[in-house]
Amino acid sequence: MPPSREHIRIYIDAPLSPGAQIALSREQAHYLRNVMRRSAGGTIGLFNGRDGEWRASLTELGKQHALATLDGQIQAQRGTPDLWLICALIKRARLETIAEKAAELGVREIHPVITEYTNAPRMNTDRLAAITIEAAEQCGLVSIPKLYEPEKLHALLDKWPPERRVLFCDEAGAGGAALARLQAAATPQAPWAVLIGPEGGFSPAERDRLLAMPQTLAVSLGPRILRADTAAIAALGLWQSVCGDWNNAPVAIDRTAV
Amino acid sequence: MPPSREHIRIYIDAPLSPGAQIALSREQAHYLRNVMRRSAGGTIGLFNGRDGEWRASLTELGKQHALATLDGQIQAQRGTPDLWLICALIKRARLETIAEKAAELGVREIHPVITEYTNAPRMNTDRLAAITIEAAEQCGLVSIPKLYEPEKLHALLDKWPPERRVLFCDEAGAGGAALARLQAAATPQAPWAVLIGPEGGFSPAERDRLLAMPQTLAVSLGPRILRADTAAIAALGLWQSVCGDWNNAPVAIDRTAV
Repeated sequence: MPPSREHIRIYIDAPLSPGAQIALSREQAHYLRNVMRRSAGGTIGLFNGRDGEWRASLTELGKQHALATLDGQIQAQRGTPDLWLICALIKRARLETIAEKAAELGVREIHPVITEYTNAPRMNTDRLAAITIEAAEQCGLVSIPKLYEPEKLHALLDKWPPERRVLFCDEAGAGGAALARLQAAATPQAPWAVLIGPEGGFSPAERDRLLAMPQTLAVSLGPRILRADTAAIAALGLWQSVCGDWNNAPVAIDRTAV
Repeated sequence: MPPSREHIRIYIDAPLSPGAQIALSREQAHYLRNVMRRSAGGTIGLFNGRDGEWRASLTELGKQHALATLDGQIQAQRGTPDLWLICALIKRARLETIAEKAAELGVREIHPVITEYTNAPRMNTDRLAAITIEAAEQCGLVSIPKLYEPEKLHALLDKWPPERRVLFCDEAGAGGAALARLQAAATPQAPWAVLIGPEGGFSPAERDRLLAMPQTLAVSLGPRILRADTAAIAALGLWQSVCGDWNNAPVAIDRTAV
């Protein structure tokens, strides 16, 4: 349910401040001119993940380049809860779904991991990053998850931050019901990670290690086996409901200024 | 996280009982023989959505046909909570995601609806039904959601069952936090529906009608705008956590018999 089609939002990795002139990329110029049929003089929204969203006037819009001048901020920067997603590499389409949904669901960092049962060891980092940016552009977000390169699960656990809890979605059923366990464990502002395994789940050695970590909260996501993307989305939504920012009202955006 | 690749499960619309001989379709024969490289004498699982899952021996497996003989039940039939999903028609790929995830998340009936802001009025019912069956086959389910033909939202509401509550995921923000409101409203065994709107949300007239219904529980799914498929999956997971069967342990399947 993205916002109205009228308002185009573009991510740009540049500082945003009043009066700043921003050069858009060739692809962005093409998109604005040929796909969205905009012309010079039109307005768009720009955000960089740090400085909120700004209304910008298209002062130049050619075939190869575009220049936007910032008018004013229309959405303040707002952070997301301190939530990571640790997800095993899975088949391309489902990993892309996870990246898109992680952005929509306010994940701060995405750490893809290689586990013992991982059978899809490759990942296109640039493509996944572009998917998180597109989700942010289309859904009115001002934050984009930081996407890490894949690493081995054991390597990530070797340096695991002592204070960060792990919501271990364990299809082998070690945990109790996710909602009750999460509500009992929730503490304000605590950093968390949601951990989702590959097709086939975790190996016995991986499970033993995870269950022995004091940070781990093992939970069950119900009596049916879920695909990894389904489990990720459901667990992230549940975490935001219990520990995150889903108690807040929808973000206010000054659309009258757009 | 589907079960092991070794165990092939096939949905068949036929009564299942001890010793029954089941003729599989030409497509199923092709799948078993050429895709999964099975041969006569092998075993598969069969389910029909009513009689649990049965171990079956492939007594014949030709290019055009296959015959399976039922040996014994390996998973009892189990129902799903009385949960409907009412979802506005949206673009094909996202509607397919919703159908797949509705099956995994234990939805009993899917009612696609046409709303005032619906801008993707077509739906391939056969294809969506096949997607729910495939999800059930791959995820070890014995129940498949009943998929209805699309109808107008107002027509569905005209005949709305008085006892069925509606979890109205309202991006316009009439509702409070989903978790708190749902926990306050939950009553054992009550029938519910999760309602997800189209891109652009509901019209003012639709919202007024929904908010005036005594069955409606309007909730917010947090401060970020979610795409319809994300909202559907997160809301279904939250409902199963609070009102549904996610307090139960994972289903027991006797794999030693397979």
